[in-house]
Amino acid sequence: MKAGPSPEEIRRHNLGTLLRFVHLRGPSSRALLAEAMGLNRSTIMALTSDLTAAGLVREELPRGPGRRAGRPSLVVRPESTRVYVLAFDLGVDRLAVARVGLGGTILDRREAGRTRGEFDAAETVAALAGAARALMRKAGRDAVCVGSAMAFPGTVRRSDDVIRFAPNLDMRKAERGPAAEGAAGRSLEEGVALGDALSRRLGLGLPVAVCNDANLGALAEHERGIGIGCDDLIYLHGDVGFGGGIVVGGRLLGGADGYGGEIGHMVVNPGGRLCGCGSRGCLEAEVGERTLLALSGRTESSDLLGRDAIRAVVDAADRGDVQARDALHRVGDWLGRGVANLVNIFNPGMVVFGGTLRDIYLGSAAQVRSALATNALNAPRENLKLRTAELGDDATLVGAAEFAFADVLADPVEVLARLRSPEETPV
Amino acid sequence: MKAGPSPEEIRRHNLGTLLRFVHLRGPSSRALLAEAMGLNRSTIMALTSDLTAAGLVREELPRGPGRRAGRPSLVVRPESTRVYVLAFDLGVDRLAVARVGLGGTILDRREAGRTRGEFDAAETVAALAGAARALMRKAGRDAVCVGSAMAFPGTVRRSDDVIRFAPNLDMRKAERGPAAEGAAGRSLEEGVALGDALSRRLGLGLPVAVCNDANLGALAEHERGIGIGCDDLIYLHGDVGFGGGIVVGGRLLGGADGYGGEIGHMVVNPGGRLCGCGSRGCLEAEVGERTLLALSGRTESSDLLGRDAIRAVVDAADRGDVQARDALHRVGDWLGRGVANLVNIFNPGMVVFGGTLRDIYLGSAAQVRSALATNALNAPRENLKLRTAELGDDATLVGAAEFAFADVLADPVEVLARLRSPEETPV
Repeated sequence: MKAGPSPEEIRRHNLGTLLRFVHLRGPSSRALLAEAMGLNRSTIMALTSDLTAAGLVREELPRGPGRRAGRPSLVVRPESTRVYVLAFDLGVDRLAVARVGLGGTILDRREAGRTRGEFDAAETVAALAGAARALMRKAGRDAVCVGSAMAFPGTVRRSDDVIRFAPNLDMRKAERGPAAEGAAGRSLEEGVALGDALSRRLGLGLPVAVCNDANLGALAEHERGIGIGCDDLIYLHGDVGFGGGIVVGGRLLGGADGYGGEIGHMVVNPGGRLCGCGSRGCLEAEVGERTLLALSGRTESSDLLGRDAIRAVVDAADRGDVQARDALHRVGDWLGRGVANLVNIFNPGMVVFGGTLRDIYLGSAAQVRSALATNALNAPRENLKLRTAELGDDATLVGAAEFAFADVLADPVEVLARLRSPEETPV
Repeated sequence: MKAGPSPEEIRRHNLGTLLRFVHLRGPSSRALLAEAMGLNRSTIMALTSDLTAAGLVREELPRGPGRRAGRPSLVVRPESTRVYVLAFDLGVDRLAVARVGLGGTILDRREAGRTRGEFDAAETVAALAGAARALMRKAGRDAVCVGSAMAFPGTVRRSDDVIRFAPNLDMRKAERGPAAEGAAGRSLEEGVALGDALSRRLGLGLPVAVCNDANLGALAEHERGIGIGCDDLIYLHGDVGFGGGIVVGGRLLGGADGYGGEIGHMVVNPGGRLCGCGSRGCLEAEVGERTLLALSGRTESSDLLGRDAIRAVVDAADRGDVQARDALHRVGDWLGRGVANLVNIFNPGMVVFGGTLRDIYLGSAAQVRSALATNALNAPRENLKLRTAELGDDATLVGAAEFAFADVLADPVEVLARLRSPEETPV
């Protein structure tokens, strides 16, 4: 029950709000900023001047055919190439690292396939750090890294970013890993601190936040994808597993300890298929990649895995393959039942299907809608939108970048002053 | 993306924060308020002086053995008897109306049993209005009603408080009701505006907000019950049906249109018992009163209904009645499976069992815990608390009162000035 903010807190809030605006909406005129924020133009000028001095934005005359007669309103543009974050995506089948500039531009990226099977934390950290260093070498000398975050396919404790559960990575090696690797070599019971290990390897003096991949996908689709403007949104993410990210009243649902959103482990079919979590009939077990491939007669020993394997099933169903079609219908029915439960519980404005669930949904939309019609109440269903992720496979990576920007957007000038050592401060 | 608040907005925020503090925590010294709000004592003095002038609080010397030497800090006390709300609870088996003073004291109440079966909106509105008027006649001449809200066992649209779905009230009469009753006589397809009808009958010039009963129960347990201090809480409410209210990050989950929290219609047993919503195997169908009574060999034609009937089953099970015990175990197993899904999805700090679910949970806690151990992930389960509602049968009524106080707590002085006509303004 805190009192209202002090003038200094308001100034920081306004600096952050202005920076967030141009970060998310792109270059904006002072006039637009004044209108959007409900401030007069002289206050906007003072704020942009502070942000310019900190090297976060620059102001310039408007370009192109939009110019009109009279004194033009200067356009405020984020310093995309000079202020950036590092975003990491640790997928079951892929590692990705990107340097993402203020404003959300992916400036540069590296990607590598990952072989399924045993997860070696030390090796993964080394690979990610190596890729990140290569990206940073290509950044300009005056560029500054303002944050870093990683999308991870498992549950992560909020208080210390420790990994608690990752049924689709075989983490035995992480558990017994070499002591020399420090925090990355601890057992899952203690929790694996992948972010700490990566942060030490990078040596930037910055923490690497670790977040559940589907949570970050939800954040990305909410801020930069199909869910812009929708404050009650559920993002369902298929990789090998089935993750979820939930936005409630414009904020990501984390729960008491940060484990919220494990929609894939909602039991929809009691006594159903065995799930990696040890339970039976979880949404992940009934809708996941393994089940779809098994039902459609494709075994995991086939050449195709992940996205490609699922696309092959959808394509086969389109071409009239009865077993593939039946498999998709069966999986789509369980998916729809799961979504119906979520609609009753959350009354979301939108449900977004991302990762491999995008393809599964597109191949079984009729079954999903039919299960919804049967199992969801009329009232929460009538304004519901079902959509596919707009950011595609980059949703989790983009979400990691947005998460990494959070600190600098909350208190831009202070955070930047802390990061830049005196000799690097722009003159 | 609004700018920070203006000085006037901050003043209103601070007035509201101070009033909310004494409303929820009781009479507080200026010193405590200064510390809790992070303001200096002269600012606290200015705020309390405004609230005193508006007739919302009074200041007095501390009483009793707490007095110490030196100049004592004045105690700020809410004007409980002069500032009140009307709270209504429309249960399936009961109507309750209370006059609740600022600070949360139930000053006076009326209660009446309700016969199950056809719901007559006009008759119900008349009964509630009559009881409310009787309560108001007993209020002091200088007392002012600052808000009004009703707990309702069904889904209510947020934008206009219209009732959309109430499977446990037989609303045929409400649907075809007499046109003379206006909004209360419309069909459920158009929505029944019970709050409008009651507001007109009361003639106070105040709207009567209508909210889902379990949502209000969650609010009450969060602010005044077992869930104080727990910002991620799920409240499960048993009446004839099975309702839910969810607090996420300290705020009630409403969803896109206000229908959020319909946990009772999560399907836990596909193809299971038919539910009032038309679906099969909903939590409400597997755990509700009707099922427990049927499984335990008690038919609905028995003399006992509702809370009494459920207590009779729990008592019989305690005394060794095998059928009653088996019925409770079966129902408890489904309840536990439902809770496990919620734990995976929300990672709540606490799950609270209220209404008749309090008794059902107490009679089947072992089954609930066992289903949780099997179906919930370890991580979100390890800090989870399972608790029974502290406010008992009054949770929904207390929640309605809290909801009714929301406006005056958001902007105390303005709202009160609007409500008091000039001649009633305290001198």
